[in-house]
Amino acid sequence: MKRYKILKKSREGVFTIEKSEDETVGLTETKVVKLFPEGLELESGEVLPGPIDVAYETYGNLDSSKGNVILVCHALSGSAHAAGYMSKIDDNVFDGNTEGWWEDVIGPNKGIDTKKYFVICSNFLGSCYGTTGPTSVNPKTGEVYNLSFPVITIGDMVKVQRELLRYLGIDKVLAVVGGSMGGMQALEWSLMYPDMVNSAIVIAATANCSAQNIAFDTVGRNAIISDPNWCGGDYLKKGVFPSKGLSIARMIGHITYLSSESMDRKFGRKFINRKTYDIDEFDFEVESYLGYQGEKFVRRFDANSYLYITKAMDYFDLPQKYGNGSLKEAFKKAKCRYLFVSFSSDWLFPPSESIEMVSALVSINKNVSYVNVESIHGHDSFLVDTKIESQVLKAFIDSVYSDLFV
Amino acid sequence: MKRYKILKKSREGVFTIEKSEDETVGLTETKVVKLFPEGLELESGEVLPGPIDVAYETYGNLDSSKGNVILVCHALSGSAHAAGYMSKIDDNVFDGNTEGWWEDVIGPNKGIDTKKYFVICSNFLGSCYGTTGPTSVNPKTGEVYNLSFPVITIGDMVKVQRELLRYLGIDKVLAVVGGSMGGMQALEWSLMYPDMVNSAIVIAATANCSAQNIAFDTVGRNAIISDPNWCGGDYLKKGVFPSKGLSIARMIGHITYLSSESMDRKFGRKFINRKTYDIDEFDFEVESYLGYQGEKFVRRFDANSYLYITKAMDYFDLPQKYGNGSLKEAFKKAKCRYLFVSFSSDWLFPPSESIEMVSALVSINKNVSYVNVESIHGHDSFLVDTKIESQVLKAFIDSVYSDLFV
Repeated sequence: MKRYKILKKSREGVFTIEKSEDETVGLTETKVVKLFPEGLELESGEVLPGPIDVAYETYGNLDSSKGNVILVCHALSGSAHAAGYMSKIDDNVFDGNTEGWWEDVIGPNKGIDTKKYFVICSNFLGSCYGTTGPTSVNPKTGEVYNLSFPVITIGDMVKVQRELLRYLGIDKVLAVVGGSMGGMQALEWSLMYPDMVNSAIVIAATANCSAQNIAFDTVGRNAIISDPNWCGGDYLKKGVFPSKGLSIARMIGHITYLSSESMDRKFGRKFINRKTYDIDEFDFEVESYLGYQGEKFVRRFDANSYLYITKAMDYFDLPQKYGNGSLKEAFKKAKCRYLFVSFSSDWLFPPSESIEMVSALVSINKNVSYVNVESIHGHDSFLVDTKIESQVLKAFIDSVYSDLFV
Repeated sequence: MKRYKILKKSREGVFTIEKSEDETVGLTETKVVKLFPEGLELESGEVLPGPIDVAYETYGNLDSSKGNVILVCHALSGSAHAAGYMSKIDDNVFDGNTEGWWEDVIGPNKGIDTKKYFVICSNFLGSCYGTTGPTSVNPKTGEVYNLSFPVITIGDMVKVQRELLRYLGIDKVLAVVGGSMGGMQALEWSLMYPDMVNSAIVIAATANCSAQNIAFDTVGRNAIISDPNWCGGDYLKKGVFPSKGLSIARMIGHITYLSSESMDRKFGRKFINRKTYDIDEFDFEVESYLGYQGEKFVRRFDANSYLYITKAMDYFDLPQKYGNGSLKEAFKKAKCRYLFVSFSSDWLFPPSESIEMVSALVSINKNVSYVNVESIHGHDSFLVDTKIESQVLKAFIDSVYSDLFV
């Protein structure tokens, strides 16, 4: 059996982990396909000119019945690269810093088992990892969109994913699965294309953002827009970047992804060195951590994309769109099995919001499972606390598959 | 009995409330006294040049035994003006927008009863409402401090308050009381000058900030420092102001002052009008509310003060300073009765942090009372949910007074 060496860099230096063919999908490739040659009609009524680039990765093999497809939807800052490694240093040596965002969950023998299932993950519309977004060139004008990019919705993202499936010759998925904003897409899928979904797995998500969620998002957007280097969205043309604003938005985001308890355990009140008694210096480790997260983010993400994506999240309103305000009414359109997973310490999309959806489904006799995982890692749990999550996913997906094909 | 008309402005227009002499201290005056002619030695080791201005207000009358003094400590953005009204429109007509920040709690027959007690509230060191802070002129150089103002601590603020009491001829207070950062000052008082304090009332506070608290503070500070109009702290000299940065800091603050539940009740997902499908426009009421709070704040508060005050809050560490890391050890120095008040929905300084202090005091047989008030208003509850709070304060203060003097 092949073994891979994976070189990871941390603040402490470079370390190596080893994985076998049985533990990772290994080296992956992001493909880009051009869809919607005539343009894409958006929920806003606007038309996004075609063709539209869609970046995606696949893992595992499509079986002859095409019944083993799992569509994975990513969260705010994710990409199509959900599993494996994106670059090779040498034969069988991978750069660990290009690890897929859900490597712990997707792969051979993992929660989403690539030995059994054909996994697709695409970068969603409006993002900046290969799929058309505000940094793309408008094919009609030959210029970068920037703020002329239309406001998009979760529904628009799902419409693009549906077109990708059509392109790949897939009529129906075994499961659509996602955490956080990925969970919103899974929810949208189940009601927008109910005949195409056998099951929806909704992790650490909500049917619509709370006022507090919107509040955090709007402060983040304000930080970006207030940065003079944002230049009304035209920073690319001016050769600048609103690093400070985007970094502040990311820092705020990070606070909401962690729990107070996990921050206390990880950083507590530890000083970097000691009190600086200097008003514009970082004193505490948690400050330096957030600053580092902000800096790292501005090197890999686009500021306008951040605006469009958080707006899509704020606009998302399942009960409003499908049930005239009622979650129960909305879910009446569903034809799939559901699995909801929440995490006890998630205060961004707390368990109560999963329970609300589960209750609505139960009340109309829909097939729904629910697991609340005990975890201290807050909203980030779905990315880091993957052991129980993986077991839960595996059991559910296998059961959906058995019900259909065995 | 005299009756006052109070003209209040809201977004909906002007409305009038009426109060009698029995319901408010009425028109108040902020006095400024110069203390520490030789300068003030700070906990950092630096010396702040004298004299130091201290702004304060008093309500009620000092009795002959001087045993009826209540020292009120304000929170982050507060001032010496805790009760009554600061300006008169006409005879017996007050401008309601100059209402004291704790008008519901301090006054005749109220929780802190100005008919019985002599109440003092002073603006703390480093603030921008009359007491020396970064916007003050350095008496040694004749120039505004700005960033040359030294980093100060809660202990330094308390030292200044202690000097004000000396100036007023007061040796011991019946109670020192404060909410939020005011509660930190009350805690500090009880251990820094244990012989001067009969009781300490600590409301919605903590013995030290959690990593999450520090995280929110540091993002706020970053937003200010990142604003190009901050000019390295020298914005006053340049005739500009870091409005955007300070406004973002305030918006973040506001989210932490409210609970998710109260935001949902107040704003929910209500649109200002409808979806704008415009990426840099506010869509939701909660966005416009936060934007309004930010704008209002930059008209009344100084950006550098915000930096110094939040730093003082982050540095505050009662167990570290007095107990080598142990809260129990720290409280051994206490000689006063304590009352702790927390609010069920406060997630900035949650009830658990009050309970931790109460438990430490109980374990060493100190005289401590504790009330957790059911409230949905989050951290702000101590300012807005004042009915039960007032009853609790009244009962406790009267009991302390009776024990001593009746």
